[in-house]
Amino acid sequence: MAKNNLAKNSLALHKKLGGKINTGLPMKVKNRSDLSLIYTPGVATVSSYLAKNPKEARNYTIKGKMIAVISDGSAVLGLGNIGPYGALPVMEGKAVLFKTFADIDAFPIVLDTQNVDEIVETVCAIAPAFGGINLEDFAAPNCFEIEERIKARLDIPVMHDDQHGTAIAVTAALMNAAKVVKKKFEALKVVVVGAGAAGTAVSRLLVKAGVKHVVVLDSKGIVHHGRTDLSKHKKELAYATSRHHGLKGELKHALPGADAVIGVSGPNLLTIEHIKMMAKDPIVFALANPTPEITPELAYAAGAAVVGSGRSDYPNQINNSLVFPGVFRGALDNRVTKITDDMKLRAAKNLAALVRKPTAGKIVPNPFEKGIASAVAKAIR
Amino acid sequence: MAKNNLAKNSLALHKKLGGKINTGLPMKVKNRSDLSLIYTPGVATVSSYLAKNPKEARNYTIKGKMIAVISDGSAVLGLGNIGPYGALPVMEGKAVLFKTFADIDAFPIVLDTQNVDEIVETVCAIAPAFGGINLEDFAAPNCFEIEERIKARLDIPVMHDDQHGTAIAVTAALMNAAKVVKKKFEALKVVVVGAGAAGTAVSRLLVKAGVKHVVVLDSKGIVHHGRTDLSKHKKELAYATSRHHGLKGELKHALPGADAVIGVSGPNLLTIEHIKMMAKDPIVFALANPTPEITPELAYAAGAAVVGSGRSDYPNQINNSLVFPGVFRGALDNRVTKITDDMKLRAAKNLAALVRKPTAGKIVPNPFEKGIASAVAKAIR
Repeated sequence: MAKNNLAKNSLALHKKLGGKINTGLPMKVKNRSDLSLIYTPGVATVSSYLAKNPKEARNYTIKGKMIAVISDGSAVLGLGNIGPYGALPVMEGKAVLFKTFADIDAFPIVLDTQNVDEIVETVCAIAPAFGGINLEDFAAPNCFEIEERIKARLDIPVMHDDQHGTAIAVTAALMNAAKVVKKKFEALKVVVVGAGAAGTAVSRLLVKAGVKHVVVLDSKGIVHHGRTDLSKHKKELAYATSRHHGLKGELKHALPGADAVIGVSGPNLLTIEHIKMMAKDPIVFALANPTPEITPELAYAAGAAVVGSGRSDYPNQINNSLVFPGVFRGALDNRVTKITDDMKLRAAKNLAALVRKPTAGKIVPNPFEKGIASAVAKAIR
Repeated sequence: MAKNNLAKNSLALHKKLGGKINTGLPMKVKNRSDLSLIYTPGVATVSSYLAKNPKEARNYTIKGKMIAVISDGSAVLGLGNIGPYGALPVMEGKAVLFKTFADIDAFPIVLDTQNVDEIVETVCAIAPAFGGINLEDFAAPNCFEIEERIKARLDIPVMHDDQHGTAIAVTAALMNAAKVVKKKFEALKVVVVGAGAAGTAVSRLLVKAGVKHVVVLDSKGIVHHGRTDLSKHKKELAYATSRHHGLKGELKHALPGADAVIGVSGPNLLTIEHIKMMAKDPIVFALANPTPEITPELAYAAGAAVVGSGRSDYPNQINNSLVFPGVFRGALDNRVTKITDDMKLRAAKNLAALVRKPTAGKIVPNPFEKGIASAVAKAIR
């Protein structure tokens, strides 16, 4: 009932608003004199100057503050491949979050193509007006190639948020969850269920953070270097993870003795029995949205010590909205051109540190708490 | 001195503003409840709905109100090919005018390519989030092919403003100038100096408006069907115009007996002697910016009865800022998918009619007068 109301209210609100962002004017134009300064003939001076000094565009145009939120609609929320029009309300929402949480101007672009070459060319072609690019809801495995190729071509920060925003949020949450259960973070045995955009980036950042034992599973089981069915990115993932643990098989082979399980896959993939296989005081992050891998109620019933989800109606919402506003705030303020793994790791640490005394009920900040974006931004320099 | 001050002040203002538009929020997000409506989980309902009903995007997203102002920087103002960073301040300024004059939300996109195929593909790829596309400052002759191909592909209005905005403004101004000199508009002998984007569209719309005698010149003289050096678009232009007048040669062969000369070319191409060749009470529009084909002072000294320019510091500023806000206002309000010649002609008539009693000093409205955009918008249906 509450859920039906939310759906109905959200549809009605979107229809009333007719677009969740609009064009704002920092300076109103009231007369011919204003017009001659911001448009012809005055603007010709600025145009000539920037033609000769293109790097100065950050100081004289929206390039200094504007982030493009770009999607091809191939993996929108938990809804799958619903195309550009399905993606647009989400990208607009993301632009609203940029403004709300970090006072960043952002603009949604949805693409009428899902071809990798065309996506790369399009994004690079429209890049000059933007100070950074947030790629969003691109499906794996194309998302990896798309992000890598665009990053290599542009001199502005480019981040696929489903990968790196999620990885930073999960790493921060896991750092604090380890404190709650009084285990050493780097010594955690972690199982990541899902080897898509989020699962891959989470696993890689955990390894980068010093966690040795990270077991990743895709729909066919543990991703390890003995498998012959792996794509290029999964081979790299297998190398990064399974050389440390040496495990093969399925979920039931990965979970025994695990300290933490991180679901970034789909609804109801984890059961009470799964959680019971884990080590003492298990940490359970079930991040599939809107239906998690296991509900927090069931996870606690199975003995979980700390539970996180992607939902706003439970405690411990582990969501990249804690991350991306601050990442781009820092990138813009510090003129960062590439967001590196070191920056991501520092961002996770800064985010974790915002919760002074982590408890089972609070391992991450509430997104409306003050200072989140600025704490994350400090890491991006 | 005044000019130097304007240049200095405009640069300083642009640096202070750091971008002339920003992202506005029609609804502020204050708490988790707001967040759940405009973002996850509520937005999923809107996304699912639009995935199934993409045409409804106009009612639920920015597509209902947002115009893209797109340039490749190949022909910016009178500055020529100065690239995307040179173009950006002008496109931002245009977005400001959209908002100021017609309460239309607009966003500037500048392209890092000047290849026709790449431009067409890029614009079509990013079209889904937009309700219309204003192409701006694309050089001739590529501008013709680019506009035609994009129009054919998209179901939203697409207009190259340097062509059609200028044509509508000039046609309106000429209608009123004819009244001032008490000549019949359709019977005017008109000489158009310049066969680029503006000259071509002006000539075509005048012919469409019923003016038979339109002589167009490019840098090599009168464009007529006897010439063997004409590009495809100039051949079409020759057919549309020279079959009526049969003239060949240069400017001195075109001007004798002409009632109006319209300069859309470059600085100082018209002299006192040229104006003196014309019929009684000549109409002179010298629209090159910032340096016109002939200054208004010289034109009057040569005997001109009505003079218009593109500059804001003289009376009779014939500028497409009188036109494009209203054209897109009408297109959005009336869900128009193609802007036709009939609409353009009606727009010119509506614009002309705003000046109740045209005089030599006032043949077009001042851009800040009320009701211009709505009068033009009424024509676009």
